[in-house]
Amino acid sequence: MSAPLLALLDGSIVDVATPLIRADDLGVVRGDGVFDAMLVRRGVLGDTDAHLDRLARSAEILALPAPDRDGYRRAVDALVAAWDWDAAPEALARLVLTRGPEGGGDPTAYVLMLALSASVVAERTDGVRVLLLDRGFDGEVVAGMPWLLPGAKSLSYSINMAAKRHAHEHGADDVLFVAPSGRLLEGPTSTLVLDVDGELLTPEQDGILASITLEQLERGAPAAGLSVRHAPLTRDDLARARGAWLISSGRLAAAITSIDGAPYPASPLHETLFRILDV
Amino acid sequence: MSAPLLALLDGSIVDVATPLIRADDLGVVRGDGVFDAMLVRRGVLGDTDAHLDRLARSAEILALPAPDRDGYRRAVDALVAAWDWDAAPEALARLVLTRGPEGGGDPTAYVLMLALSASVVAERTDGVRVLLLDRGFDGEVVAGMPWLLPGAKSLSYSINMAAKRHAHEHGADDVLFVAPSGRLLEGPTSTLVLDVDGELLTPEQDGILASITLEQLERGAPAAGLSVRHAPLTRDDLARARGAWLISSGRLAAAITSIDGAPYPASPLHETLFRILDV
Repeated sequence: MSAPLLALLDGSIVDVATPLIRADDLGVVRGDGVFDAMLVRRGVLGDTDAHLDRLARSAEILALPAPDRDGYRRAVDALVAAWDWDAAPEALARLVLTRGPEGGGDPTAYVLMLALSASVVAERTDGVRVLLLDRGFDGEVVAGMPWLLPGAKSLSYSINMAAKRHAHEHGADDVLFVAPSGRLLEGPTSTLVLDVDGELLTPEQDGILASITLEQLERGAPAAGLSVRHAPLTRDDLARARGAWLISSGRLAAAITSIDGAPYPASPLHETLFRILDV
Repeated sequence: MSAPLLALLDGSIVDVATPLIRADDLGVVRGDGVFDAMLVRRGVLGDTDAHLDRLARSAEILALPAPDRDGYRRAVDALVAAWDWDAAPEALARLVLTRGPEGGGDPTAYVLMLALSASVVAERTDGVRVLLLDRGFDGEVVAGMPWLLPGAKSLSYSINMAAKRHAHEHGADDVLFVAPSGRLLEGPTSTLVLDVDGELLTPEQDGILASITLEQLERGAPAAGLSVRHAPLTRDDLARARGAWLISSGRLAAAITSIDGAPYPASPLHETLFRILDV
């Protein structure tokens, strides 16, 4: 396993083991900042613009300064040049922006490059056992409440991490969040796609994160004879679907193999869908 | 304004301007950690045990290692000794514990001491103009969902900070969160107390944070001829109350002077309630 690499926005590579962040940085003491994560395979970047756009949208929702796009590009380029692609052919570049020290000062900005873990790579072929967990709120309700930061990829991810821990403690790999109304939402770090009678359906993106992997699927679907549609989805849709996936930048697509311990069918569209994302 | 001071759990005081935290600390990249905050007045500590107990409860909810209580005491003692109490007679000690670096390693633990801001001190006498904002979830519902971390003081506070920003942008000082059901919950960093016909009422602590300031009020109330009771409270209770406060470790009690722009009455119990907390 390759050690993580760290780059600053001036393009310098610095030792990740050397502390970078002040103890009073609002990113630490308040989870007050944003991030984005982008897959890099054998040195080939994904859609950097799309990830920088989403980072900028997240920053705007949190009233943070606009990210320094050129700086993030410099940092990513430096990491791509410094990474050992033979040792770790796939890596995630995590772009971070915090509000900076509490008493005032510049935002903290950097990019971390981490080898994609073997367990994440395995999910592309083995799929994921999923637990349905209530998210406590309805996406379409919080979408109209900007103070709840809907649609932002903030650093305040402790609930997403706790939900994944809960899944691991209960014999599952990942989580699908459901609203109290019964609407299907998203995974803690992924987007849901269903195969319903050969059509790909995904939840309305109200109050949940806009997925860049989904955009890629939407662009590639027509040429593969598939269509993707946003729809209000419920547990009933999950029950009648021919199969389902959690999609995200790192794992691309992981087929859901069980839900709450019960086996779940494999969609005949899996190979086609995976090929669209596996570029 | 005194500069913040930083202490490690071995009791050493280190320069807050020198970076302490790795870029891949889960406290930063995932808001994955806990904190607690305690008022220190002219070197006199509040109920340190109560704050350490709550820090330990928060850590347990997040499945973090138990905090090193002796270490936190050493750090707080060192800060109390090093602080200039003439320059800043009141300070907040913020105890922080993160999960540590993503690839494994020890948790990150430290204590920050910050001068209580003049605006917080002023709220004790001037009160606060409050905005009612929907929190998106019902406290009694999430109380049964441990993966949503109810009752934990986690580092993932970006929504609490965003709600306060929203209040400031709309001519208010602070926020009172309300559940979709209409139940009154809490402030982003405070607990609600109502004066209803001379009795002090406060929301059931389901899915919201257990308040140490409230415990202090409950202990001191009988001797002052007051009683405190937990009750399911709604907007109607707010409308019929003789007055209300946001209470917290730093400001003690801030009377609510307006709600959503409309003037709100001052309780005749204000002086009595404040005296119980002002020790």
